[in-house]
Amino acid sequence: MIVVRSVAEVRQALAEPRGRGESIGYVPTMGALHDGHLALVRAARARDGVVVASVFVNPLQFGPDEDFDSYPRDEDRDLALCEKAEADIAWLPAADELFPPGFGLTVAVPRLSSLLCGVGRPTHFAGVTTEMSKILLLLAPTAVYLGEKDFQQLVVMRAVIRDLGLPIEVRSVPTVREPDGLALSSRNAYLSTAERRTAASLFRILTELTEKLRAEPGSVAEMLGEGRRALIEAGMDRVEYLELVDGETLDPVRGVTKSNRLVAAVWLGSTRLIDNTEI
Amino acid sequence: MIVVRSVAEVRQALAEPRGRGESIGYVPTMGALHDGHLALVRAARARDGVVVASVFVNPLQFGPDEDFDSYPRDEDRDLALCEKAEADIAWLPAADELFPPGFGLTVAVPRLSSLLCGVGRPTHFAGVTTEMSKILLLLAPTAVYLGEKDFQQLVVMRAVIRDLGLPIEVRSVPTVREPDGLALSSRNAYLSTAERRTAASLFRILTELTEKLRAEPGSVAEMLGEGRRALIEAGMDRVEYLELVDGETLDPVRGVTKSNRLVAAVWLGSTRLIDNTEI
Repeated sequence: MIVVRSVAEVRQALAEPRGRGESIGYVPTMGALHDGHLALVRAARARDGVVVASVFVNPLQFGPDEDFDSYPRDEDRDLALCEKAEADIAWLPAADELFPPGFGLTVAVPRLSSLLCGVGRPTHFAGVTTEMSKILLLLAPTAVYLGEKDFQQLVVMRAVIRDLGLPIEVRSVPTVREPDGLALSSRNAYLSTAERRTAASLFRILTELTEKLRAEPGSVAEMLGEGRRALIEAGMDRVEYLELVDGETLDPVRGVTKSNRLVAAVWLGSTRLIDNTEI
Repeated sequence: MIVVRSVAEVRQALAEPRGRGESIGYVPTMGALHDGHLALVRAARARDGVVVASVFVNPLQFGPDEDFDSYPRDEDRDLALCEKAEADIAWLPAADELFPPGFGLTVAVPRLSSLLCGVGRPTHFAGVTTEMSKILLLLAPTAVYLGEKDFQQLVVMRAVIRDLGLPIEVRSVPTVREPDGLALSSRNAYLSTAERRTAASLFRILTELTEKLRAEPGSVAEMLGEGRRALIEAGMDRVEYLELVDGETLDPVRGVTKSNRLVAAVWLGSTRLIDNTEI
């Protein structure tokens, strides 16, 4: 595995395999790597000729009161994990090369970005899509690998790539979970021992609710209400949202079909957890 | 000259010359062509191996109360003029291929787009930059040719191309004028005979003011005030703005340097005219 930092270096590292016609799989990460990220790298490894993983805490996607400064960073550990998962190129971009002084661009899908997580994080997805668009244009990968855990991010990025007309495939990878069901997330490190125990209820309740929705597809609104109550009873401090949505438009739906997704965001103390299940 | 309509056709027409290493010059237009547009085509003809001109009234750049429906359209005349100016490819995109149902993308430089013309036309430049970004990504030209007449558009597009990191050169072409100085514009057709006579004062007053600013660089605010009064006295119904701005940031400036631009938008009846001069 080679480690590169500048845009020129990463493009040069890709030029030769690209010239040979090899496919390029790109795995974007913000570091603090866990098995969820490594599943993305392994999925790319299994399908593509060259695998690039980036480690970059993207400042654009953090709100002014969010955890940009405290977001966990451990470059040596992240690089060792990328190597173990058999990435070919680890790219550590510099913020001031991607977003130099005077940078004023926004690439966004405002409607999709305003829903669900966008209600509480109004600038988040525009930060993701601006950074990702810039990176996808300069890397020009064959495919980008994104986790299903961040389901709205996946939907938003599919829309951006489609609307820009980029010849890049979006490949989603199932959520990796702890033995008790908690979805892996770099932010799980913020949970206290007691919160960590409670956190597992999120996926348990989503799974139970998914079963119930499949069994009784006629009473969506009522079941979502029950689900919200169950989350609070299980010890969550707040339910930011629990919705059944169309898997492409993210619009709330009241009928149960396979293209729907059950999505949730909850708070445990000052930590926000998201998860989702396929219907 | 060949005439193409679909994205597949225009890309195919470019594939062979691109493969030979020829440079591709792109001239975006909304049709209703005049000598200003043809100067762009000729500038591309003089420098590039292949010249593509598009004729497309971009719906995204019109506000809800603007003249999208009444904007002049004459395809046969426009194609004849493109051919006379020696374009190789005339491309007539279809709105529903560039922006199919569900299209939700915005590519914008919000700060630059909110100034000057953006005050009165708050969605205009986002419409320009979204459409242009999509087209530039799918054509991947060597250079795009833009007129100095639409100075803010030129600055905005330079910023978008720079911030996206696209390897496309922006080449600006001086404004083409009527014998009395009026900048050519498709919207000049909206002027009555009396308004048309008055319209020439815009460039005359900008030119006089430019001379004065060069001669007395210390009294910018006062001279801009005089200029606004002179425009009204010459018969303009309203001065939307008359400003001396930095040629890159578009910020108002109070010192006179060569990198500044004197920019104006005025109304004559229901017709809006813009023009600008180099300091």
